[in-house]
Amino acid sequence: MTTEETPRPRRVAIAGASGYTGAELLRLLVQHPGVEVVALTAETHANQPISQLFPSLAGFVDLICRPLDPAALAAEAEFVFLALPHKASMAVGADLVKRGVRVLDLSADFRLKDPAAYRTWYGFEHLAPSLLGEAVYGLPELHREEIAAARLIAVPGCYPTSAILGFSPLLARGLADPETIVIDSISGVSGAGRKPELPTHFSEANESLKAYGVGKHRHTPEIEQELSGVAGRPVTVTFTPHLAPLTRGILTTITARLAGPRSTAELLGVYREFYRGRSFVRVLEEGRLPETKHVLHSNLCDVGLVSDARTGRVIVVSAIDNLVKGASGQAVQCFNLMAGLDERAGLWIPGLFP
Amino acid sequence: MTTEETPRPRRVAIAGASGYTGAELLRLLVQHPGVEVVALTAETHANQPISQLFPSLAGFVDLICRPLDPAALAAEAEFVFLALPHKASMAVGADLVKRGVRVLDLSADFRLKDPAAYRTWYGFEHLAPSLLGEAVYGLPELHREEIAAARLIAVPGCYPTSAILGFSPLLARGLADPETIVIDSISGVSGAGRKPELPTHFSEANESLKAYGVGKHRHTPEIEQELSGVAGRPVTVTFTPHLAPLTRGILTTITARLAGPRSTAELLGVYREFYRGRSFVRVLEEGRLPETKHVLHSNLCDVGLVSDARTGRVIVVSAIDNLVKGASGQAVQCFNLMAGLDERAGLWIPGLFP
Amino acid sequence: MTTEETPRPRRVAIAGASGYTGAELLRLLVQHPGVEVVALTAETHANQPISQLFPSLAGFVDLICRPLDPAALAAEAEFVFLALPHKASMAVGADLVKRGVRVLDLSADFRLKDPAAYRTWYGFEHLAPSLLGEAVYGLPELHREEIAAARLIAVPGCYPTSAILGFSPLLARGLADPETIVIDSISGVSGAGRKPELPTHFSEANESLKAYGVGKHRHTPEIEQELSGVAGRPVTVTFTPHLAPLTRGILTTITARLAGPRSTAELLGVYREFYRGRSFVRVLEEGRLPETKHVLHSNLCDVGLVSDARTGRVIVVSAIDNLVKGASGQAVQCFNLMAGLDERAGLWIPGLFP
Amino acid sequence: MTTEETPRPRRVAIAGASGYTGAELLRLLVQHPGVEVVALTAETHANQPISQLFPSLAGFVDLICRPLDPAALAAEAEFVFLALPHKASMAVGADLVKRGVRVLDLSADFRLKDPAAYRTWYGFEHLAPSLLGEAVYGLPELHREEIAAARLIAVPGCYPTSAILGFSPLLARGLADPETIVIDSISGVSGAGRKPELPTHFSEANESLKAYGVGKHRHTPEIEQELSGVAGRPVTVTFTPHLAPLTRGILTTITARLAGPRSTAELLGVYREFYRGRSFVRVLEEGRLPETKHVLHSNLCDVGLVSDARTGRVIVVSAIDNLVKGASGQAVQCFNLMAGLDERAGLWIPGLFP
Repeated sequence: MTTEETPRPRRVAIAGASGYTGAELLRLLVQHPGVEVVALTAETHANQPISQLFPSLAGFVDLICRPLDPAALAAEAEFVFLALPHKASMAVGADLVKRGVRVLDLSADFRLKDPAAYRTWYGFEHLAPSLLGEAVYGLPELHREEIAAARLIAVPGCYPTSAILGFSPLLARGLADPETIVIDSISGVSGAGRKPELPTHFSEANESLKAYGVGKHRHTPEIEQELSGVAGRPVTVTFTPHLAPLTRGILTTITARLAGPRSTAELLGVYREFYRGRSFVRVLEEGRLPETKHVLHSNLCDVGLVSDARTGRVIVVSAIDNLVKGASGQAVQCFNLMAGLDERAGLWIPGLFP
Repeated sequence: MTTEETPRPRRVAIAGASGYTGAELLRLLVQHPGVEVVALTAETHANQPISQLFPSLAGFVDLICRPLDPAALAAEAEFVFLALPHKASMAVGADLVKRGVRVLDLSADFRLKDPAAYRTWYGFEHLAPSLLGEAVYGLPELHREEIAAARLIAVPGCYPTSAILGFSPLLARGLADPETIVIDSISGVSGAGRKPELPTHFSEANESLKAYGVGKHRHTPEIEQELSGVAGRPVTVTFTPHLAPLTRGILTTITARLAGPRSTAELLGVYREFYRGRSFVRVLEEGRLPETKHVLHSNLCDVGLVSDARTGRVIVVSAIDNLVKGASGQAVQCFNLMAGLDERAGLWIPGLFP
Repeated sequence: MTTEETPRPRRVAIAGASGYTGAELLRLLVQHPGVEVVALTAETHANQPISQLFPSLAGFVDLICRPLDPAALAAEAEFVFLALPHKASMAVGADLVKRGVRVLDLSADFRLKDPAAYRTWYGFEHLAPSLLGEAVYGLPELHREEIAAARLIAVPGCYPTSAILGFSPLLARGLADPETIVIDSISGVSGAGRKPELPTHFSEANESLKAYGVGKHRHTPEIEQELSGVAGRPVTVTFTPHLAPLTRGILTTITARLAGPRSTAELLGVYREFYRGRSFVRVLEEGRLPETKHVLHSNLCDVGLVSDARTGRVIVVSAIDNLVKGASGQAVQCFNLMAGLDERAGLWIPGLFP
Repeated sequence: MTTEETPRPRRVAIAGASGYTGAELLRLLVQHPGVEVVALTAETHANQPISQLFPSLAGFVDLICRPLDPAALAAEAEFVFLALPHKASMAVGADLVKRGVRVLDLSADFRLKDPAAYRTWYGFEHLAPSLLGEAVYGLPELHREEIAAARLIAVPGCYPTSAILGFSPLLARGLADPETIVIDSISGVSGAGRKPELPTHFSEANESLKAYGVGKHRHTPEIEQELSGVAGRPVTVTFTPHLAPLTRGILTTITARLAGPRSTAELLGVYREFYRGRSFVRVLEEGRLPETKHVLHSNLCDVGLVSDARTGRVIVVSAIDNLVKGASGQAVQCFNLMAGLDERAGLWIPGLFP
C-alpha cells in the first residue's frame, strides 16, 4: 500500500523552543522524513520568528513562536516535546496528556518514580504524582517496549544517559560491586542552557575547569533509580559533575570494584551482548576509549573500558553529545519508537569531525 | 518512470581520504541519497579501515583505504574526488580525466587559468597546463552551467569562496572601486589540515591570534582571477588571512570605496537579486551580520554588509564553514550539478548551533 | 638619601574594582613595589571582600569593597584609578580632580577632545567639557611628558592602543596615504567586560567569529583623533572590530597605500627609530609577525609589517593583551610616569607562554 | 651587613630550555630577585637565541642555547634545572651531582624510590639506582627540610602534585579508608609538551574530552609512593587522567570512603591545620570549590572538599597550574629552600584572571 511507503508525517510541536534543547529538537525535526513541525512556543519570544532567535535555521523553518496554550497545541499536534524549565513541565505535561496528546518531556519533572525524591533533591512538591508511575523513563536501550506504548516520556538527563549506558551491563550481570561506584563526569558548557550567567560567561568558563554540585547534583537520584532497576537492588553512587571549556560533549568515567577478576576482553564481550541491536551504542574495541569529538552532533554513545587487575577495579568511559543523545536526539529516538518508525529515522547521522 | 524516482546511485571514490577534507567528503557522501562510495585511497594508511582513522564514522562506512591506483579507480567510479595535497593532484587528475572519469579536485592544482601563476605563487611548473583551460572553477553561484557539463572541477579554496561570494555583486554592478579592495579573513585551525605541526599544536594555537602569509598567500591569485572575471577588468586585492582558536569557520571582511553613495538597503537589494535562486547564499537583513557559528557544519554562506556614508566605504562580511562550503560541501554541490541532481541533494542541512 | 632608595609607597585607590579592568589593576598593583592600595570601591558588591569576587587574589589582598565616596577617596589616596562604566566616570573624575587627587580614568569619558564627538558617537552630552582640554590621552609612547605632569589621564581604549601604536610611525613620517587606512581588529572576549550577556555567553561566543559595531564603533573617533595628531592633518579610518573565541588579546591589521615604494626593511627601520626608548613596544624583525600569545599578560605591544610591492600597500600587524597594555597595564604605566617612577616599575614582566 | 640584604644572586642553568617547562622556568627565573641565569641548553636548537624559540621572552633574556655539556655547566652554575625528557635525565643528573652541582630534575627519573618500579611502569632499567635513595621528592609541603639540604631533587609530576596535596591530610590523620581511593584528574594540553603530535593537534584536541593511560599512567606509582608515606601503610589508588581543551590547569577530584562520619567543616579544619605555614596551599571555605582559573599562572594549589553523609564518602577537589605548581614553579620553590631564600621568592604572584 502506497500510504505505508510514504506515510503521512506526524504532526509535532515544541513547547519551549527558544533554549538550546528546543533549537536542537527543531534542527533534528526539520530534517526528519516522518515529521511535520506544526507549532513552536516560547514565552519570552512570542511572535518572533524562530529564525531570528536561531539564525542557523533561517531558510529551513519559518514558524513564529507563540505563547504556550495546551488546548491549542492539543488541537494541532499529536506529539508535543516539552523543552521547558524544570517545574514548568509538570502541569503542562499533565494537561496535555489529559487531552490525548503524547508527550515527551525533556525536563526532570517526570523522571523520578518517588514523589518524595522531588522534595529531597529538587525542593518542591510534585503536582502530578499520579503520573510519575505512568511516565516512562525515555532511555530506549533499557525501556524500548514501554516507550513505544507510552503516553508520557520523561527524557533522561544528559549525565544520567552517559552514566546509565556506561554501567548497566556490569550491574545487570552482577559483575561489579554496587557499593563502590564512583562516577566523575565532565561536561561542555551548553548543558547549562542559554541563559547568560556569570559561571557560563565566556571569560569565566574558558580556560578553566571546576567541579560543581558535589554531593547534591540533581541527576544523582535519576542515576541511582535506573541503576537500581538494572541491578535489582538499591544502588548508591557518588556522582561528581565537572565543567570544561567546550560547547558540547559529556565524558563520564565510572570506577568500581569488580565482583571477581575479569579481563577487559571478557567485559567488553558482556557489553557487546547487552547492547546487541541497540544501534546508538558503540562498544569500542579493547585498547580504545571514547572521545567526545567522535560522537559530536550524533545520537551515539561510545563506551570503552579497562579492567585493572592490579587494583581489582574496572574503569568504564562513555561519551555522548549532551544536546543530542543527552537530550533532543534521545527525545526524537523515543518519538520514533512511539510513532512506530525505525528508531534511527532522522537520527542516523555520523559525528562531525573535527 | 520508476528509475527517475529512485535513480541508481552514482559510484564515487575519494582519493586522499585520510585528511580533513577527505573525511568531510565521506561524512557528507555516506548520507547522500544519490551516492554509493565505492573506494577510498590513503597512501600512508593503506589497508586500514577508514573508521580507525576516523572513529566518528564507525558503523556508517567500513571501507578499507587502499593505495592510489588511477586505473582501478577509473574501473569502479564514475566520479572521483581528489582530496590530495597541492601538486599531487595534477598528474592524477589528468590521468583520471583521460580515462573518462569526471574529477572534482579539492587542491589548487587546476584553479588558476594562467600556468605562469603557478610558478609565481606556488613555485612549481604545471604538469598539465592544457587542462587549465578546460577545468571549471567550482563555485556554483558563479559557474553553474559550466560545472554541470564539466569533466574536471577545480573546487575553490576556502578563503576565496568567502571572498568571492562576499564581493562579486558589487563588482558585477560596478558599485565599488576595484582599486581599493582590502580583504581580511579569519580562519579556524582545521583549514591547516591534519598534519601535526608547531603552529597548529594545541598549546600554541589556543588562546592566540595571528596573521600569516601576508602579501603572499596562495589564495590571492584565485580571488583576483575570479573577481576580475566578475568585474570584467583586472582586479588586484590585498588579502590578509588570520588564524584564530576555533576548529571550523571562516569570517571574511571586505572593505572598499563605493563608486558612489548607496545605502545599506540598496546594496543589500543588489545582493539579493544577484543571489536569487542560489540556495546556499543567505543575504542577511540590514542590521544583521554573519557569525560563523550560524553556518557551522552547513554548506551555507551568510553575507551581510554596511554602507558607511561617513567614509564612503562599504564593509562586507561573509561567513562559511571552511570544511563544508569552503571545501567538501562545495565539492558535493558541484557533483550534484554534474550528476544532474538537485544542487541541494545531501547538503540541505541547517547549521549546528550552538 | 635613604628615602630616595626606598621611597614611601604612593597611596592609590581603585573605583570600580569588581570588573575585569579593576581586577587587573589590582593584580598589577599588589605586586608593584611603589604602591600601597588603600581603598577599593564596587557599588554592587559593597562590603564584600575583593577576594570573594576574585578568588585568585585570596592571600594577596584582603580589602573590603565599599561604595564610591569621592571625598573619602580624596582623603586617603593620592591617585585614583577609575574603572567605572562609560558616563559614570565624568562626574566622579571631575570631582576628584577638584579635590586635588590625580586621576587615571579607564573609561572613554575624557578621551575625546571635542565635546561634540560625545554627542555623535556616544549619544550623550558631556558634563565636564572644560576638562576635556586638560585631560591627557594616556598613551605614553606618544605623550610621555604631558602624562608625567597631568592631573587627569584618559587611559586609551584597547583597540585604539593597538591601532595607534601600529600606524603612528608611518603617518609621522608621511610614508602612507592617510585616505586609505583600513583597520581590522580581532579581540578576545574579556574586552566586553564581566557582565553576562548573550553574545558573551560561552556557548554562543565559543567556536564562532563575528564582526560587530561596523561603521560605528566608539573607538573610531579616538583612533582618528590620535592619528590625526600624529599626521598633522585630519585622518579618517575604516575600523572594523571582530570577536574571536579567546579570553585575552587583540590583533590589529592595518592596511594602507604607501606614499611611495619602501621596502619592509626600510619601514621597520622607521619603526625602530620611532620607538627608540619606548620599552613596551617591540618592533619585530623582517619575516616575523606578532601573535597575541607572545604578549599575553604582559604590557608589551609587538609590531611587525610587510611592504607589498605588488599592490603598493603596507600591511602592519600589532598585538597586545587587551587587559594589560590595552587597559590596566597602560594605566599603571601612566601612573609610573606621574609618580616619577621608572616607567617599567611593576610592569616589566614577560608574557605567559603557552 | 649589607651583603646579607642584597646577597649575590645564585648562578643557575637550565638544561632542556626549549620545552614548555624549560620556558616556564626561564620566565620565572628572569624575574627572580635572587637568581642569575648563566646558561641554557637545547640540543635541537643549539646556537639559537632563546627569544627566537620563545618570542615572549624577547627583551628579557638574550641567552643563546647550547648543546648540553655537564662539565661546562658545572663550571658555571651552582644549581642546574633539568627539563629533559624522561630517561635523558638519569645520566646527566648523576654526572652533575658528582661534580658538586645541586640538581633539580623535572623528569620522572629520580622520583621513585624503588628501582623495580621503573621497570614495571617505565619499561627501563634505572642507570643510577644508588641515587634513588638520596634524591628528595620535591614537594615542599611534605618534605621541606630534606629539600633544603638536598643535592638532588626529583620535582614531582603535575598530576601527583595535585593528588598528593589533595589527599595527604586525610591519610595523615587516618580519616579515610586507603582501600577506596579513586582519583580522576583533568588536565590542559600543555602537560603533553611542545612536540606536535596528532592527539595534541589543535583540531583534534579542541572541543573534545577523553581519558587516557587508564590503569597504566606513569604518575600512579608516584602518587602511591607518597600517599603511602603519609599514611604509614601501603596505599593503592585508581588514577584516571583526562584531557580537556584548555592550555593550562589540572583539576583533580579524589573520592574515598571516610573512616567515620565527619562534617565538611571538621575535615576542612584538619586541612587548615595540616597546611599551616604552607603559603602555597589555599584551603577554601566550606561551600567553595577550586577552579583552575583561580590559580592560573600562579604557584598555588587550591583545595576544597565536601563530606557526603549520604554515601559516607568525601570528595576532595584540588586545582593547580600544571606548568607552575605542577612543574617549574615547584622547582623554583625547591630551589628557594635549597638556596636558603624565602620559599616564596620570585613566586608570590597572584593568578591571572580572567
